[in-house]
Amino acid sequence: MDAGREILVADGWDAVTYVSVAERSGVGRTTLYRHWPTIEQFLHDVLLRDLTAAHHTPVGVTRDDLIEELDRFRIELHNPLVERSILTIIDRASRNADFARLSDELYHTRSLTLAQIIRAARKSGDIDATVDVTRAVAELAGPLVYQRLLGRKTITRKFVENLVNDFLRAHRTPAR
Amino acid sequence: MDAGREILVADGWDAVTYVSVAERSGVGRTTLYRHWPTIEQFLHDVLLRDLTAAHHTPVGVTRDDLIEELDRFRIELHNPLVERSILTIIDRASRNADFARLSDELYHTRSLTLAQIIRAARKSGDIDATVDVTRAVAELAGPLVYQRLLGRKTITRKFVENLVNDFLRAHRTPAR
Repeated sequence: MDAGREILVADGWDAVTYVSVAERSGVGRTTLYRHWPTIEQFLHDVLLRDLTAAHHTPVGVTRDDLIEELDRFRIELHNPLVERSILTIIDRASRNADFARLSDELYHTRSLTLAQIIRAARKSGDIDATVDVTRAVAELAGPLVYQRLLGRKTITRKFVENLVNDFLRAHRTPAR
Repeated sequence: MDAGREILVADGWDAVTYVSVAERSGVGRTTLYRHWPTIEQFLHDVLLRDLTAAHHTPVGVTRDDLIEELDRFRIELHNPLVERSILTIIDRASRNADFARLSDELYHTRSLTLAQIIRAARKSGDIDATVDVTRAVAELAGPLVYQRLLGRKTITRKFVENLVNDFLRAHRTPAR
């Protein structure tokens, strides 16, 4: 799997084959076939291993929790391997059921902790109790994706902090 | 170019070759080579043609202008061809200079009209004059990218309207 990951990062999805993985790893092709009957299954396992990255464990302080969790995502997006994996997955998801599943897992995993923080903030009154969680997650994670995956920009922690400030301003509980 | 686009949508980037394009279009391979010395140049032209999609012409009403421009982007993202083109471009941008250029053009073009509306809104006082334009654009376009390209969700016009409402709440001019 390390060999497959190295090939993926260096040369992209198409370069990952039973032959190239066997060559680089020294593992026999027969062994590879036995573990992963299709190359898609192999790549699924390689990619998933890297995308179950550490998330922040919320401590109950809305602003800090949002910044910490988003900052992990920011750092992840600057890791060439993760970037490449995400792009490979979403590019293939429209044409391959294995990758569609992986893409859904990725979206779900990425959204989970943010959704948890937002629900807690609705409960505590830090943000409006009527905020739509799905939209809120997209408002927080989306700008990072736009800047990094489309714009290929370097994102700073300051950007994340300002994003969270804007988010909290948009959604604070209306004064009674 | 129509043939190339059809192959791209159906089977992805790797299926677009001089041979497949010549076969589908009836145009001789020699002619293709003459016009596009590399297949990357050919794809550049195919993709760029589709991504110079119509933008909204701002009329000077901030909320309406933002909704109209973002709604065009929303519709674009539900067009399988555009979706595929964007994914192909950003996937290849990290490894190919032609695609890196194309990706920058895409990001720039997508941001241009939104930036124009935001600058006008800063001037008119509809939003805070200190709003950072780059971040503002990412806050508007990013959530659509996250929902559609990562989440593979259908986005409604209502989502766009709510997004713009949240954005304006976050950035309205502070009361004096």
